[in-house]
Amino acid sequence: MFHRSLNVAAWTLVLVSLVSVANAGSDAPEAGRARLRDLGITTGRYAPGPLNAITDVGGVLVGHATIVRGDGALVPGHGPVRTGVTAVLPHGGDLWNQKVPAAAFVMNGNGEVTGLHWVNESGALEVPILLTNTMNVGRVSDAAVAWMIRKYPDLGIGDDVVLPVVGECDDSFLNDAQARAVGEPEVFSALDTAHSGPVAEGAVGAGTGMMAFEFKGGIGTASRVLSKEQGGFTVGALVNANFGTREDLRVAGIPVGEKIRDLMPKDMNDGSIVIVVATDAPIDSRQCMRLARRAIVGLAYTGATVRHTSGDFAVVFSTASRIPHYPKELLYSVTLLSDGHITPLFEATEEAVEEAILNAICMARTMVGRDGNTAYAIPLDRLRQAVSH
Amino acid sequence: MFHRSLNVAAWTLVLVSLVSVANAGSDAPEAGRARLRDLGITTGRYAPGPLNAITDVGGVLVGHATIVRGDGALVPGHGPVRTGVTAVLPHGGDLWNQKVPAAAFVMNGNGEVTGLHWVNESGALEVPILLTNTMNVGRVSDAAVAWMIRKYPDLGIGDDVVLPVVGECDDSFLNDAQARAVGEPEVFSALDTAHSGPVAEGAVGAGTGMMAFEFKGGIGTASRVLSKEQGGFTVGALVNANFGTREDLRVAGIPVGEKIRDLMPKDMNDGSIVIVVATDAPIDSRQCMRLARRAIVGLAYTGATVRHTSGDFAVVFSTASRIPHYPKELLYSVTLLSDGHITPLFEATEEAVEEAILNAICMARTMVGRDGNTAYAIPLDRLRQAVSH
Amino acid sequence: MFHRSLNVAAWTLVLVSLVSVANAGSDAPEAGRARLRDLGITTGRYAPGPLNAITDVGGVLVGHATIVRGDGALVPGHGPVRTGVTAVLPHGGDLWNQKVPAAAFVMNGNGEVTGLHWVNESGALEVPILLTNTMNVGRVSDAAVAWMIRKYPDLGIGDDVVLPVVGECDDSFLNDAQARAVGEPEVFSALDTAHSGPVAEGAVGAGTGMMAFEFKGGIGTASRVLSKEQGGFTVGALVNANFGTREDLRVAGIPVGEKIRDLMPKDMNDGSIVIVVATDAPIDSRQCMRLARRAIVGLAYTGATVRHTSGDFAVVFSTASRIPHYPKELLYSVTLLSDGHITPLFEATEEAVEEAILNAICMARTMVGRDGNTAYAIPLDRLRQAVSH
Amino acid sequence: MFHRSLNVAAWTLVLVSLVSVANAGSDAPEAGRARLRDLGITTGRYAPGPLNAITDVGGVLVGHATIVRGDGALVPGHGPVRTGVTAVLPHGGDLWNQKVPAAAFVMNGNGEVTGLHWVNESGALEVPILLTNTMNVGRVSDAAVAWMIRKYPDLGIGDDVVLPVVGECDDSFLNDAQARAVGEPEVFSALDTAHSGPVAEGAVGAGTGMMAFEFKGGIGTASRVLSKEQGGFTVGALVNANFGTREDLRVAGIPVGEKIRDLMPKDMNDGSIVIVVATDAPIDSRQCMRLARRAIVGLAYTGATVRHTSGDFAVVFSTASRIPHYPKELLYSVTLLSDGHITPLFEATEEAVEEAILNAICMARTMVGRDGNTAYAIPLDRLRQAVSH
Repeated sequence: MFHRSLNVAAWTLVLVSLVSVANAGSDAPEAGRARLRDLGITTGRYAPGPLNAITDVGGVLVGHATIVRGDGALVPGHGPVRTGVTAVLPHGGDLWNQKVPAAAFVMNGNGEVTGLHWVNESGALEVPILLTNTMNVGRVSDAAVAWMIRKYPDLGIGDDVVLPVVGECDDSFLNDAQARAVGEPEVFSALDTAHSGPVAEGAVGAGTGMMAFEFKGGIGTASRVLSKEQGGFTVGALVNANFGTREDLRVAGIPVGEKIRDLMPKDMNDGSIVIVVATDAPIDSRQCMRLARRAIVGLAYTGATVRHTSGDFAVVFSTASRIPHYPKELLYSVTLLSDGHITPLFEATEEAVEEAILNAICMARTMVGRDGNTAYAIPLDRLRQAVSH
Repeated sequence: MFHRSLNVAAWTLVLVSLVSVANAGSDAPEAGRARLRDLGITTGRYAPGPLNAITDVGGVLVGHATIVRGDGALVPGHGPVRTGVTAVLPHGGDLWNQKVPAAAFVMNGNGEVTGLHWVNESGALEVPILLTNTMNVGRVSDAAVAWMIRKYPDLGIGDDVVLPVVGECDDSFLNDAQARAVGEPEVFSALDTAHSGPVAEGAVGAGTGMMAFEFKGGIGTASRVLSKEQGGFTVGALVNANFGTREDLRVAGIPVGEKIRDLMPKDMNDGSIVIVVATDAPIDSRQCMRLARRAIVGLAYTGATVRHTSGDFAVVFSTASRIPHYPKELLYSVTLLSDGHITPLFEATEEAVEEAILNAICMARTMVGRDGNTAYAIPLDRLRQAVSH
Repeated sequence: MFHRSLNVAAWTLVLVSLVSVANAGSDAPEAGRARLRDLGITTGRYAPGPLNAITDVGGVLVGHATIVRGDGALVPGHGPVRTGVTAVLPHGGDLWNQKVPAAAFVMNGNGEVTGLHWVNESGALEVPILLTNTMNVGRVSDAAVAWMIRKYPDLGIGDDVVLPVVGECDDSFLNDAQARAVGEPEVFSALDTAHSGPVAEGAVGAGTGMMAFEFKGGIGTASRVLSKEQGGFTVGALVNANFGTREDLRVAGIPVGEKIRDLMPKDMNDGSIVIVVATDAPIDSRQCMRLARRAIVGLAYTGATVRHTSGDFAVVFSTASRIPHYPKELLYSVTLLSDGHITPLFEATEEAVEEAILNAICMARTMVGRDGNTAYAIPLDRLRQAVSH
Repeated sequence: MFHRSLNVAAWTLVLVSLVSVANAGSDAPEAGRARLRDLGITTGRYAPGPLNAITDVGGVLVGHATIVRGDGALVPGHGPVRTGVTAVLPHGGDLWNQKVPAAAFVMNGNGEVTGLHWVNESGALEVPILLTNTMNVGRVSDAAVAWMIRKYPDLGIGDDVVLPVVGECDDSFLNDAQARAVGEPEVFSALDTAHSGPVAEGAVGAGTGMMAFEFKGGIGTASRVLSKEQGGFTVGALVNANFGTREDLRVAGIPVGEKIRDLMPKDMNDGSIVIVVATDAPIDSRQCMRLARRAIVGLAYTGATVRHTSGDFAVVFSTASRIPHYPKELLYSVTLLSDGHITPLFEATEEAVEEAILNAICMARTMVGRDGNTAYAIPLDRLRQAVSH
């Protein structure tokens, strides 16, 4: 068997992973943690959707697989492991044959999201978006191919070959990055369990080992809804937040990071952010690109400085239309939002991204990783206090 | 053991592969095949280097691992396999810590070369360039990480994480693409056996299953040397040629493809090209980008039309300087070629790319792949005849 | 008075210019000159439209104003003048309020086409495209504003401000570039006399003083029509050809430039090309960008090397839809060509551009400019001979 | 005569203009206005340079010409005029032959800065940067050519042709945009009087008629100095601020705009921003581009949302090296800052841009323009109060 021993090892992982997924899947706020808005802190002017999550955009699915395994000193390739994978799917249907309009913007290319050349050339997304840790991108990409083959058995035979979209941040301060612990089981789990409804945040999925503003970071999400006059569209963001120095952090404009200077990690783990934005507004790839650029504005609202070492990527898609993979007809018709009415969508994107990042740090709990390296959760009482005074 | 059974299987592969590599490594023209220039056909005005290969650029190393395994009907995931991997290294030293200036241009993003966001942001290349088949990119990327870890055991621990550069073309007309047959053994083999000197061409390494102009295609290489007054610099190109319809093919301007309309594959396998250009001219990343754009001009000289389905990528690096990964000093000094003197380098790039593509089809032998699918070698006598009349 | 003498001179110019325009407007092949196809030389596989001109795309209008004034030694700012302006309009209607989808690609930015940031951001063209000489861009741009104000008297008051699209090539080998001789009268004339039907080529309008392949160059045009199965769409190109060394020139693949080494200008005037492509295919701005990149492939077919000094710009628009300037509705519907069927449009673009460039040099007559500088017309008999042998 | 009356008027303008320039040249804070820092409000962590201005970067020169003419109802083309031109020169030497490294980033292309294709292709700036109002770009560009010809009489004869860099914002709420009132006299004045030392801010030069956050806006500047360990480099920013809705405005993170909702203009004049950043850090064009992207981060810190209608451009240059226009030697040597040490420069850029924007609104006085349209100055006492509470 090709992967037998891997699979044996993997099942152990999977058990851990499924437990984590199950926990994560409960989507209950982790004990002692709360989302920004639940702390009484609001940012922006638009109202969030019912879940204040990317899944407020109808049809969008999110799945996580989390691996937390081992403790103590690093044995390279053998843990401790603090990592995972997060999947975002524009819809639960036949994505390959019913692509969605999409585009990606790279603000600082010190990082990687694979597959973006094709996303931007075609103006479409035809595969799930997967997020994971940096040195795991290859393995996750390969697992994505496997998952696609399972779903589309003719890929690379009578059907086209597939180019996965896999984004990374570096969790090596907590995680044994050399282990590249995310394999097929976790990727399949994240994809197969992806669901609508509440989204687990913080140290979950790809966010498991991430840090933001030198606090524990990871996955965060938020959404905004435009008024009826503006079209009533929803914009949702999901981020894997792994960037920033402490002093940069601003919450609702307040320099919170300057006020909480303890609880520092022993080293700076200078990372990145991948931002995924979904909307049900009928926009095409050019307009998705415009939203992707605004995602970076939302990032800046948190005080981010887009450091040399921070790979800052934004991938945006619209769920409002479908693009066939193999169009039979020469022509197709599509309904689009006029650029003259797009500014509210920009603003909603900025607000959703800003709050998604802040939700990531609010929801992440303190985590001890390899070599005892510790990423501290932002103390929510001190956050609240810093903002209110 | 993590990969034990994989490794067992892999050793079989490796044996096959090493044989292929050994054959390929002999660098002797395959029986009955010849390079364009050896047919008496010359293109361009600049003289080639001694080998007329990318390895004429001092220090550049090329390695191939080739997998030819099985015959007959496709059993998806189990062959027949006609694929491989090709490695290009700017130098044989400590590439991670002594990066080289680089840039990449994407003419048509219907394809993938991973890691280019970082190449273009940093203006440098710090990893080998690997070429392989499309659905194998993830696995090759993961193997590249493993190879880098072997070489730099502190990666992702005290050292940075690594972003591999892996480019793809689609060989699924001949190859069982679902098998993703290129794994660690082949990647390690290609990297570890990479050498200066003659470069095997045609159906070798990543070119094993490729087609160009509906002939058998694959790996080709060529070089050009500027005059002493122009700086005496060398430019070398290596391509994985897998694009084009028959009727497009032009050799030295002659519409050869229109004259050889038989020997057609039963289906069009509409692919891509990845172009690697090396030079010892002292240029920075901005200038590498300018060369990368000219690589596309050389592509067009072969009659290429840059079809919708063709991912056309060019990666360019200079071997003339070294960029430290962890600069201790704030400042460094570099010597650069003035833009006012760069046009000959553009022309040399164009000529090298054009001839590299033509060498690929001249050197590739007929190959029968999965389901009896056959890619015919261009008949050299008819090529010669077509050009001379 | 600051501009008095210039303005006095300008009226003279206008008279000359109007005569020239009248002549140019006759659209008769200049005596002794012929278009490529009329020489019995064909390139490409698609059929041209009825006029083999950009105006085969329904609704497209082209106008020229030509200034040929003075002889002998240059008196900077006072002539001799060999220049002009060419206007291309997507349609003759209310362009400002009924924009067309558009995009522009810059292959080598050693030149200028103003207004492209807005074209690419909005994905639309809302003003005429104007071509002229380099140092005249400002004055032509200002005249374009004046023309737009005349047409839209509320611009910059209750209406938006306007950003002209003006492209340049450098005609200073023949022309007194410091004179910036193209002013409002010429710009208004080119715009007001723009018409459908045959397009004057060669040394006319913006092409008056241009050189290509060290022959006399200038304006050229061509078109291609897709088959009914491919959608029956028309693609037309218009170029201002002012680039290339003699030895680069290829006609239908034949290195004609190498065969005609006399009739050289005394100095190389190393210039640029602006390419305008129109189509009635229903494509959006992303697809226009894809066509714009293929325009460069067509350029390369002529042997162009995209030298350091050559600004190579392509602007593409589609006449198939209209985008309102002030959309009242949030949403609009549009019919688009599927990317899966776009390759023929790419090929047609390449062919039209290639032939447009060759038409420019075939139609241009020898011109003597400032300081007796002479740009020789390519001798058509020798061209024919070179291609046929 | 075409331009006679305009030209007659122009001399009047010049007188007015020179007076304005003289006033502006005194560089004294306008009565009742103060810079942000003088209000006791500080943003950012780095120290400003001695002048807290772009001219803290050694050698950088700034000149303004201001036109304030007429009152009352608009007579299109005849005023009232509230506009001007601002010139930024990297150094006072032979800029054409001693270019500086440069790059430009376009965050939202709803606007224009001419000449950027060449800046980004060459990686250099060889002309002054001029800022003005939108429909005046052509005329200013032409004047820039005239000024360059005066300085380099062989331009377009034995010397290259020149491509001006002219950026625009739309001041048509206050200004008679159709007048295109900035001509040669004003452009020559701004260029010829450009000087080091204090920089006039607010409603001066190109900022005369601009609005930001629905307050009176215009020209602002600021600078930052890195520590000795960081290289001791200076970064300076100069902006023409003409963007934003009131509610967006944040000062030091505080939503000041939400607290001052009166003093609104009768219409939203939805504009743009052009940002110029200078540094004496030895960086190349790739690194200038990285700074240009960070300029947008600084913009976002002010609460900017990068609306559809806002053209957001950043042009960055380094004064640390010189690039010859006509290099005699093939090679040249340059000293560069390592990317590994560039983050402080990013942060300094962000801070300088943020403060430059805020200085623009702090220094601008209420202005009544055409049709009685009024842009109110932000009341400084209320600003101070809003920030402190």
